[in-house]
Amino acid sequence: MNYMLSVSTGRQGLYDITHKVVECLGRSGISEGLVTVFVRHTSASLLIQENADPSAREDLESWLNRLVPELDEIYTHRAEGPDDMPAHIKSALTATSLSIPVLDSAMVLGTWQGIFVWEHRHHHAQREIIVNVLNDS
Amino acid sequence: MNYMLSVSTGRQGLYDITHKVVECLGRSGISEGLVTVFVRHTSASLLIQENADPSAREDLESWLNRLVPELDEIYTHRAEGPDDMPAHIKSALTATSLSIPVLDSAMVLGTWQGIFVWEHRHHHAQREIIVNVLNDS
Amino acid sequence: MNYMLSVSTGRQGLYDITHKVVECLGRSGISEGLVTVFVRHTSASLLIQENADPSAREDLESWLNRLVPELDEIYTHRAEGPDDMPAHIKSALTATSLSIPVLDSAMVLGTWQGIFVWEHRHHHAQREIIVNVLNDS
Repeated sequence: MNYMLSVSTGRQGLYDITHKVVECLGRSGISEGLVTVFVRHTSASLLIQENADPSAREDLESWLNRLVPELDEIYTHRAEGPDDMPAHIKSALTATSLSIPVLDSAMVLGTWQGIFVWEHRHHHAQREIIVNVLNDS
Repeated sequence: MNYMLSVSTGRQGLYDITHKVVECLGRSGISEGLVTVFVRHTSASLLIQENADPSAREDLESWLNRLVPELDEIYTHRAEGPDDMPAHIKSALTATSLSIPVLDSAMVLGTWQGIFVWEHRHHHAQREIIVNVLNDS
Repeated sequence: MNYMLSVSTGRQGLYDITHKVVECLGRSGISEGLVTVFVRHTSASLLIQENADPSAREDLESWLNRLVPELDEIYTHRAEGPDDMPAHIKSALTATSLSIPVLDSAMVLGTWQGIFVWEHRHHHAQREIIVNVLNDS
């Protein structure tokens, strides 16, 4: 089964979608199998990261922004703005798809793991995410 | 079902295999499920990226070559040539497997998303890719 | 089917779990399908890399430690020690889940590919890994 999520982002950062993926899994009624999350964009990505202290997510953002700055003479792909090429690079370094096993009707996420959409552009409004649930036959 | 693809690379860069994966999905006859693409190498990787403007792919290549240069005194693994250890690092930073949900007999790729093999070595001839298709039972 | 592995790490580095994943696949009795490996932590990750020459793994470790050093004034998340925030960043740059197709009762790993847990902290004792096996129905 596939479920489509539309996530409002709007500015750079990590957006927690764990509860939305949990809801898709609940609707599927599946007790054992595999959830795959897929982002339909090349300037936003997916990440499983610490869901507790927000400072960890802020540091991730600061660190990646320093590694992949907007001002860089190496870029030739500039037509869509200064945040576009860095967004493609950041997507390449993180994940477009994530798969999480399902056991006893729940994803096997660790206590501190959340599922996040990582928005890499400044002014993007909506991101489409597909949640696929496979039943262990 | 599993399908093996042999992709001719030959030099560093991104090679679009989207049409080949689409063909595997068509042969499977599956309308809903999951496609997983897997590369059987540690010096080439997989990437879902922008399929339109080639300048985005060229910038990705330039940026990664600068981050992981061939001349670096940190490397001790040099027996297979100066492009070998950088190729392993680049593979570690990108993907060895990618999973894409299938809906209405098509992968749910976004409009601008293509599936690429990223060759990180200078003179490699053939890369083996496995395309796995799982039916949503 | 899901199998839980507990992997003793203890210090930074790559720990080969290929044989343990092979054993899970054997217990499942599945001949064609998909194996997904998932790590339940945000300061350790997964990697498919060269399994032959240990110098390649040592260089991966050295290179990543230089890219993401412990002393960095950009970090504000410091409560869990100087190796904690670098561990989160390293996890974000590598993989939390990996999927490997199964054909003829074996994973389609290339000759030189091994599956590794990458421990990014100095003093961690046990890491939980879930191995999910899906049958191709």
